[in-house]
Amino acid sequence: MALLIKNGRIITADADYTADLLVEGETISQIGEGLTAPEGARVIDASGKYVFPGFIDPHVHVYLPFMGTFAKDTHTTASQAALIGGTTTYIEMLAPAQSEPLREGWEKWTGLSEGKSACDYTFHLGVTRWDDKTETTLRELVGQGMKSFKVFLAYKGAFGIDDDVLYRVLTLARELGVVVTAHCENAELVAQLQRKLLAEGKTGPEWHEPSRPEGVEAEGTAHFAAFVEMTGAEGYVVHLSNERALEAALEAKRRGVNLHIESVIPHFLLDKTYAERPGVEGAKYVMSPPLREKHNQHALWTALEQGLIDTVGTDHCPFDVSQKAMGEGDFTRIPNGIPAIEDRVNLLYTYGVSRGSLSLSRFVESASTKAAKLFGLFPRKGTISVGSDADLVIYDPGYRGHISAATSHMNNDYSGFEGWEIDGRPDVVTVRGEVAVEGGQFVGDPGRGQLLRR
Amino acid sequence: MALLIKNGRIITADADYTADLLVEGETISQIGEGLTAPEGARVIDASGKYVFPGFIDPHVHVYLPFMGTFAKDTHTTASQAALIGGTTTYIEMLAPAQSEPLREGWEKWTGLSEGKSACDYTFHLGVTRWDDKTETTLRELVGQGMKSFKVFLAYKGAFGIDDDVLYRVLTLARELGVVVTAHCENAELVAQLQRKLLAEGKTGPEWHEPSRPEGVEAEGTAHFAAFVEMTGAEGYVVHLSNERALEAALEAKRRGVNLHIESVIPHFLLDKTYAERPGVEGAKYVMSPPLREKHNQHALWTALEQGLIDTVGTDHCPFDVSQKAMGEGDFTRIPNGIPAIEDRVNLLYTYGVSRGSLSLSRFVESASTKAAKLFGLFPRKGTISVGSDADLVIYDPGYRGHISAATSHMNNDYSGFEGWEIDGRPDVVTVRGEVAVEGGQFVGDPGRGQLLRR
Amino acid sequence: MALLIKNGRIITADADYTADLLVEGETISQIGEGLTAPEGARVIDASGKYVFPGFIDPHVHVYLPFMGTFAKDTHTTASQAALIGGTTTYIEMLAPAQSEPLREGWEKWTGLSEGKSACDYTFHLGVTRWDDKTETTLRELVGQGMKSFKVFLAYKGAFGIDDDVLYRVLTLARELGVVVTAHCENAELVAQLQRKLLAEGKTGPEWHEPSRPEGVEAEGTAHFAAFVEMTGAEGYVVHLSNERALEAALEAKRRGVNLHIESVIPHFLLDKTYAERPGVEGAKYVMSPPLREKHNQHALWTALEQGLIDTVGTDHCPFDVSQKAMGEGDFTRIPNGIPAIEDRVNLLYTYGVSRGSLSLSRFVESASTKAAKLFGLFPRKGTISVGSDADLVIYDPGYRGHISAATSHMNNDYSGFEGWEIDGRPDVVTVRGEVAVEGGQFVGDPGRGQLLRR
Amino acid sequence: MALLIKNGRIITADADYTADLLVEGETISQIGEGLTAPEGARVIDASGKYVFPGFIDPHVHVYLPFMGTFAKDTHTTASQAALIGGTTTYIEMLAPAQSEPLREGWEKWTGLSEGKSACDYTFHLGVTRWDDKTETTLRELVGQGMKSFKVFLAYKGAFGIDDDVLYRVLTLARELGVVVTAHCENAELVAQLQRKLLAEGKTGPEWHEPSRPEGVEAEGTAHFAAFVEMTGAEGYVVHLSNERALEAALEAKRRGVNLHIESVIPHFLLDKTYAERPGVEGAKYVMSPPLREKHNQHALWTALEQGLIDTVGTDHCPFDVSQKAMGEGDFTRIPNGIPAIEDRVNLLYTYGVSRGSLSLSRFVESASTKAAKLFGLFPRKGTISVGSDADLVIYDPGYRGHISAATSHMNNDYSGFEGWEIDGRPDVVTVRGEVAVEGGQFVGDPGRGQLLRR
Repeated sequence: MALLIKNGRIITADADYTADLLVEGETISQIGEGLTAPEGARVIDASGKYVFPGFIDPHVHVYLPFMGTFAKDTHTTASQAALIGGTTTYIEMLAPAQSEPLREGWEKWTGLSEGKSACDYTFHLGVTRWDDKTETTLRELVGQGMKSFKVFLAYKGAFGIDDDVLYRVLTLARELGVVVTAHCENAELVAQLQRKLLAEGKTGPEWHEPSRPEGVEAEGTAHFAAFVEMTGAEGYVVHLSNERALEAALEAKRRGVNLHIESVIPHFLLDKTYAERPGVEGAKYVMSPPLREKHNQHALWTALEQGLIDTVGTDHCPFDVSQKAMGEGDFTRIPNGIPAIEDRVNLLYTYGVSRGSLSLSRFVESASTKAAKLFGLFPRKGTISVGSDADLVIYDPGYRGHISAATSHMNNDYSGFEGWEIDGRPDVVTVRGEVAVEGGQFVGDPGRGQLLRR
Repeated sequence: MALLIKNGRIITADADYTADLLVEGETISQIGEGLTAPEGARVIDASGKYVFPGFIDPHVHVYLPFMGTFAKDTHTTASQAALIGGTTTYIEMLAPAQSEPLREGWEKWTGLSEGKSACDYTFHLGVTRWDDKTETTLRELVGQGMKSFKVFLAYKGAFGIDDDVLYRVLTLARELGVVVTAHCENAELVAQLQRKLLAEGKTGPEWHEPSRPEGVEAEGTAHFAAFVEMTGAEGYVVHLSNERALEAALEAKRRGVNLHIESVIPHFLLDKTYAERPGVEGAKYVMSPPLREKHNQHALWTALEQGLIDTVGTDHCPFDVSQKAMGEGDFTRIPNGIPAIEDRVNLLYTYGVSRGSLSLSRFVESASTKAAKLFGLFPRKGTISVGSDADLVIYDPGYRGHISAATSHMNNDYSGFEGWEIDGRPDVVTVRGEVAVEGGQFVGDPGRGQLLRR
Repeated sequence: MALLIKNGRIITADADYTADLLVEGETISQIGEGLTAPEGARVIDASGKYVFPGFIDPHVHVYLPFMGTFAKDTHTTASQAALIGGTTTYIEMLAPAQSEPLREGWEKWTGLSEGKSACDYTFHLGVTRWDDKTETTLRELVGQGMKSFKVFLAYKGAFGIDDDVLYRVLTLARELGVVVTAHCENAELVAQLQRKLLAEGKTGPEWHEPSRPEGVEAEGTAHFAAFVEMTGAEGYVVHLSNERALEAALEAKRRGVNLHIESVIPHFLLDKTYAERPGVEGAKYVMSPPLREKHNQHALWTALEQGLIDTVGTDHCPFDVSQKAMGEGDFTRIPNGIPAIEDRVNLLYTYGVSRGSLSLSRFVESASTKAAKLFGLFPRKGTISVGSDADLVIYDPGYRGHISAATSHMNNDYSGFEGWEIDGRPDVVTVRGEVAVEGGQFVGDPGRGQLLRR
Repeated sequence: MALLIKNGRIITADADYTADLLVEGETISQIGEGLTAPEGARVIDASGKYVFPGFIDPHVHVYLPFMGTFAKDTHTTASQAALIGGTTTYIEMLAPAQSEPLREGWEKWTGLSEGKSACDYTFHLGVTRWDDKTETTLRELVGQGMKSFKVFLAYKGAFGIDDDVLYRVLTLARELGVVVTAHCENAELVAQLQRKLLAEGKTGPEWHEPSRPEGVEAEGTAHFAAFVEMTGAEGYVVHLSNERALEAALEAKRRGVNLHIESVIPHFLLDKTYAERPGVEGAKYVMSPPLREKHNQHALWTALEQGLIDTVGTDHCPFDVSQKAMGEGDFTRIPNGIPAIEDRVNLLYTYGVSRGSLSLSRFVESASTKAAKLFGLFPRKGTISVGSDADLVIYDPGYRGHISAATSHMNNDYSGFEGWEIDGRPDVVTVRGEVAVEGGQFVGDPGRGQLLRR
């Protein structure tokens, strides 16, 4: 069934105009003034609303084992929450344990997602060990359209890799034309500082940040940048949280290192005092890199506005209150993560555009277009153009509401943004031409999402 | 007459797709697959070609008095050369002498351009003195749609302003929401170094660069950035030429200063050895800031690719060989400038995209879209979207040719890029829906261009 | 009369040993173990005490007109207070008004000091205007042994000079081998921010700091450094107050600019909250550059410990409470300055060495030796070696006391450090071989000090 | 026998005066004017000569196994060459193989030196592995006066340690108040780049530098600084070779990291074109970090003059031509090192002081005093003061000569500085009060040197 969206204000990273959009099949077929609806087409009037390209979350965890427990979402819950929040594509971190060969991890992660997601998705291939089959598997999966890797400099003994593997991954990535995304914290310093703090009886969630201070992330960022430089690869720093790490990354960019920067929505809005709340209240706000001193938020916002930060993701990773409580008496045992896949777009719009100085085009670029370009989804995703997938968000800037766990669609029992006001929300969201969300409710096909090969 | 452009590969800063474009009147009315031509429409087949939004040159001199002589172009010659090279909008520096009230300058500059340009154009309002009417005039002209100022930190005694005026201009600009563009070289250091070099008998064009070394530009850039920071204004550094100045500008951006960076095509491709050629051969390559050590080119290209440099202009300013010869025996008397308005797009495409690693989207963004956004022309100019002006460039990437003064349309008798190969050129160029260039020849209406009020 | 100081622990910038010192006439004649006293010599037992070279305060105002009033000290009071505090040489800023030719200033300043000071002293020659006699006068005075200049980038319309004069001063200084000291704040930004704040009704002393924020000083520092670089001169930044200015200065040093850095004792110990006290209580703490955010103190201390800051002075400038009250209702009319010439050494020893991590050798180097080396007084002053002037401080680290206006010898009615504890004090101080202080009391010849020609 | 040195110009880091020096026993007993010689004292007239404190080389290899061969010097040859060149104390790197427990290394290294050195010496304790006895052994040896450690971030699989051991070493060092010196190159990048270059058939000595480019050293330096910062230890970067690494180190110092910087004489004077000479001629100049692009020398000299570089050592490590030839066809097998222990002082004096702009006091400070202070030898060594060891260098600035392997006293058959002119040399050198060198010849007791416990 064709779909005609009339009179919307179409906003992309480089356009801002009012026109009609005709969708036939899964893609956009025409953009124009006064288009007429084909026979049987559904017509939606978008007057007074924005029409955005579907948003892309480049950094999501759905399936994630952590010290014997698991993140709470399934692809079913995560994808519907994503869509309600305006995100029509997400990239999950496929991060096998070090004991698990990559091929097995691939089968596990794709098995868990296949037919379960309501929106399209793909994976960053986590390289957490290097055995005699790793290279072959990577080559095969890249051949099948998986065009990005993920490495962890942190998490010694779990996901973390050493310099030898880092060099191999980057060298292979360069050959294959694949971007390497990296969690940049020095593993050893984190491990030692954790040990030291625990030995001193500093066990509460307020000690999580001091166990991985800004300098540890800045060091990891500079280290990764040096390896990217020496291998000639293309790198992407995930969830950058503070000004000193930003400085390290920008210094590398200025030298000509091909490096991109992601930050995530919690780091723009929350500071470390949240994690200093007593007990499990603080534990809710434990993520890594940790929430930082407030002054860093200004640095992140201005860097985002100026295009120095490329993308805004979530690092979505939902653990519920009882899981967070596992870390009582030992902050290193608190499952890391703040759920946000549903809220990213509304928060960025509200606190960036509506109440801040982020332009609409930078908003779209950082929350959608740039991720599409970096990860091989463009122009299929990330823009509104003829031939592109009709992943569209008709956004109502007149909506007023609040974020609350009670009304959230993520599978969790708390929200890190409980009570925060939002100044808009997606009214209608389409996935490849079919309406998946209307009036804030999921109305789509729960298994329609496809694994995107790029 | 309507125009239907079929099967082109449409490239904007955030899109890349193949579709048909329908132009009705002066604007784009539809974008779609398999559009049918209205009665009487002209149909152009753009198969195998790119369709770009018309390019914008944010930094051009047409009328420019210099020590008793004048830059050679008129709006007639400059605009036709621009169009043949794919530039459909230019922004001229309206730079009155210090003896001339701004209002008189405005009348002179608009008088010289009105009805003379084949493409659209507008002005950066040069503030070269501050008298009792300057503020009133600026407010009036901003009210009439002139939304950018220009200041010179260099050129002591000619265009240069002091800190007092700089503060006033920025404060007023902030109030009016206007961008201030700035030539950032410390006036005093240039004047003193010139004097010193001449006194030492160093009079040839090879001494032009040492009279305004990188540190002088870096100082000017940091100085301007500090004033932008303190006033809360929005600044734009014109024709940044070297890595050290780039570092100063990026350091300010990182601190949150609202600063944008332009570089110009000669600085990407030519180095200071050109200006070290003997006599008038060297004089041809005298511009300010001067051509630099070659290693700076790498820094500029990578910064451009990464979005750290916002725009690429020309600083087009044609003086002919006899004028250049005026500076024989005294490099400070060489008229400054290298003509480039016709060649910018082809050179950037050839050495950036075709033979380099600049993406098509960054090419369009830096040579068109970003200037439109910064200077209030967007989305009318700078993108391809429904409702936008139909300023379009159908670009043939299969064309092979050379740059030469002999075939140039700029009013000059030499080219700074004589013999340089180009890997493509505009095949058809339209101005608000009418074809102005075909097959490399101007075929349009010589006086159709309008002064853009923003 | 000879003087034999026995058993002291002699500390210089590069030595730390216990020995006897024999002073004959005005200089040190022998250093050794078990020296015997010549006939008639006075013998002082310095067991358990340090013997330091006399301290040098490189930045002092004694005579200073300010908006119709005058700093309170005379050379009589200032020099005796200095000696009691361990300072045996000070360098006064000779800063004529712009209406006053340098030669007249020279006569006024030397007239006021001649025969009045109990300790040796010299001048930085303030160049506050450039008339047709300035160069001649400077050459003459340098020929007479005045080997340092002072310029103000701040104080537009009073002492401040423009870039033209700055270039001339530096060029002349380079030719003459003279150091140029500079007050580095951008004059225009200060003037404009003052005007803006006053216009907004922000008139209290708490607005002094926002009228000259860190960025204004950083800009001034970078600007001065650029001029030092371009002229090849030797520069010295006075009273650097914050981390951002420090960064600017160090960046210049790293590039090879011959630049030295002074900070002053108030900036190490006091922060801007002092100046935020209501009314005249805040006014007591108004100086320029202003007291800063507390975090800057850590940066200054570590830079001092590491040798990145060269010298510690005072910017001594005493105005009493009634004078400070002149600025009620207009912070720009508060006379600037915090009296400290008596307290610098004790404060630096107490909070740097005794309670901090400043080494004894860096303490002596930064408070004495380095100033002697930079300003042509070495090895006559600044060290303990045979032939050097016997300006000696026998320092008692066992003394415990407090700073108070009530017991101060400076001519003032308040202390910026009222009630601060000190962990040591000079027990005996000599000036060229004669005892001037004993047990905290001045016992010397009030007019013995000489103008040091270098 | 007492020694009276008359009329010398005594130069220390903070003094410059003419006086007589009386040495009784092993130490200086008096400094004064017109001292009279005790009965039987030898009197040396030092008129027209400098008297410097004995120079200290903080970075020397004497015994060093390398791929089955050994550095050529013994303590006998190295110490006599050192003395002839004015160096009276050296600190050897005690660097056991990873297969060798530290205690065994200690016994081997002390066994080889005991009774063999003509001058005093001590060790940096190389921590090249961490086994269950390492900590105990380190505590014991520190207790016995060994107050500095050495770690290698480079040399993966040989001396190199990983981040875990680095953290342990720094933490222990902090507890014990010991400085950690570090070779800062990223081991993995070197190993991989070596492999890559060899695989491409790039086997000559000219490929040594590209196998460990500046970025690799800058990364190592920043990495080490981050660990020093996080542990609160005191660090010392050895043989820093280039501007980018210098920037990394200074950035850390500015942040307050307790970090010191050593560079070595070859990096001030030789550039990478030396190592690009064909075959074994190039191999003579292979050391690590490698000789660099020439522009770095300016950065090192200015940083030295300004006190940003703390010390100048040699990294003395002599392999002869036949050993250097082992690396024919594989640059990774060239024994690393350029012999320089005899030439450091003369080269630094000649090209720094005599022909450059290094002050005499910075010369002494960087080549002697600062190393004494950092490594616990001060004031016993590194200065001229009563009670200090009488390690003295009477230096003749009127001497003119050349460096040549033919006249060298190091045990080697080539010199990296063959034919270089020198503008001075030590005339007389004493070791704890006994004359060891006269007129350029060793005349001392070959086994008089002691292991310095600190």
